[in-house]
Amino acid sequence: MAQTLGFIGLGIMGRPMAKNLLKAGYPLVVHSRSKGPVEDLTTAGARAATSPKAVAEQVDVLITMLPNSPDVELVALGRQGIVEGARSGLLYIDMSTISPIASQKIGKELAARGVRMLDAPVSGGERGAIDGALSIMVGGERATFDVALPIFQAMGKTITHLGPLGAGGFTKLANQIIVAVNLTALGEALTLAKKAGLNRELTLKALGGGLAGSRCLDQKTPNYLSNTYQPGFKVDLHFKDLGLIMESGRALGVPLPTTALVQELFAALRTRGRGGLDHSAVITLLDDLASGT
Amino acid sequence: MAQTLGFIGLGIMGRPMAKNLLKAGYPLVVHSRSKGPVEDLTTAGARAATSPKAVAEQVDVLITMLPNSPDVELVALGRQGIVEGARSGLLYIDMSTISPIASQKIGKELAARGVRMLDAPVSGGERGAIDGALSIMVGGERATFDVALPIFQAMGKTITHLGPLGAGGFTKLANQIIVAVNLTALGEALTLAKKAGLNRELTLKALGGGLAGSRCLDQKTPNYLSNTYQPGFKVDLHFKDLGLIMESGRALGVPLPTTALVQELFAALRTRGRGGLDHSAVITLLDDLASGT
Repeated sequence: MAQTLGFIGLGIMGRPMAKNLLKAGYPLVVHSRSKGPVEDLTTAGARAATSPKAVAEQVDVLITMLPNSPDVELVALGRQGIVEGARSGLLYIDMSTISPIASQKIGKELAARGVRMLDAPVSGGERGAIDGALSIMVGGERATFDVALPIFQAMGKTITHLGPLGAGGFTKLANQIIVAVNLTALGEALTLAKKAGLNRELTLKALGGGLAGSRCLDQKTPNYLSNTYQPGFKVDLHFKDLGLIMESGRALGVPLPTTALVQELFAALRTRGRGGLDHSAVITLLDDLASGT
Repeated sequence: MAQTLGFIGLGIMGRPMAKNLLKAGYPLVVHSRSKGPVEDLTTAGARAATSPKAVAEQVDVLITMLPNSPDVELVALGRQGIVEGARSGLLYIDMSTISPIASQKIGKELAARGVRMLDAPVSGGERGAIDGALSIMVGGERATFDVALPIFQAMGKTITHLGPLGAGGFTKLANQIIVAVNLTALGEALTLAKKAGLNRELTLKALGGGLAGSRCLDQKTPNYLSNTYQPGFKVDLHFKDLGLIMESGRALGVPLPTTALVQELFAALRTRGRGGLDHSAVITLLDDLASGT
């Protein structure tokens, strides 16, 4: 008989991920702050529960997909939280992007109650979540990973076990460094090219053919050509991740000068009211600087 | 009858490029400061000339591949320079990576003598030069580009006309922004991952599968895994390019905050005696910062 799964956090990412678990045939218990997504999931065959505790009481494996570390701490360890409903043997998988240090702390507290935990943040965006094509970066015991693998396969395509609890989160943060900094580099390069009078389409084509080529350049080319920056992945969320990155760098003793600068540029984007745009919109700040606005 | 070509500057890049022109059947006149490469080329069928002026007197199309703007200015406009030997109708192609503003100035002076000029910097490194597989970014009149195209095709694979004189150079500088900044991002990300205890090979694999994927990551993976940084493209040369980039940014009124920071990190690498390493060695500086050395 299939394991019963729980899913808490039915936002832009969580909702399609949970739907893919239903499609794969898993009995599913869900909980979320917003009513709409819960109704959507119950219509599709899930059962609703009134609290994280109530979910934990009914399932073999519990997944969370929440905005940030405090949300996960509250849901996992707070009043009416997972810890209150968990029986020994529960498998808990947090797929949010949070502080890996927070993940390790939560895992330690849950382990004392016999709960095994994996951290498994994802990359691939809403599209990847809908298509079940996410890249899933997993930290935790190898044996626990093996148990969870079929569940991950219902949501993602590239599934990598990277090490002990927190390793998934650290890998995701490394990913977010590269993406934010590379988007900023693209912003500076294309702004220089624009002021030099170059045609943007030709420039992107020439850049994409050489060592400057990247998935960021490929994926964001339509934004750069139309000069519109609908998300995609929001500046606000990437700014949150940059905060987690700097916090981790401080905790581990890793100075991150370029990431720190890019964090400030993202902060400036937000003060200009562009936190809701796609993260590739960092180019608009550089364009402002070059055009005196 | 094939046009007679001239080639000045037979360094790491120029020498194999000139050889590919000989292989394509062009009569070739060469000049270089070092004797070895000149003898190598004459053995292969080229004629040697004693000065840039002497080359210019004997050829239909003259190519230069030199370290930096002052070298090109001297060879083009100095004593015994191209300008002294050039007849009206000469086509001059500078394939060096220099200031596009200097290119435009040189082009203007040569145009007064009836010489047409293209700037055509390349990307692809020594390997690309040997294999005739360079990416060539060309600026200048379209009609002049069309005349030069068969010559470019003997040296490169991706050949793009980007706009008027200087457009090739500005595109190359945009390319160099992205590469230097992305290598620094990789350095910060992988240093954080290392201090978090992650396995580097697994991390690179997970990063390469998502939005952080890039040609830099792919090409430099062997360096990151072996922790050796044999060039490739030297820190010293990329540092020179970063200087050209900042100079162009200043001239065009484009603030480049991230590039400026990366320029300082490359400067710090050079003070540590690592200017001769591959540019991916910027990670070693970040590793030093994190390990207190």
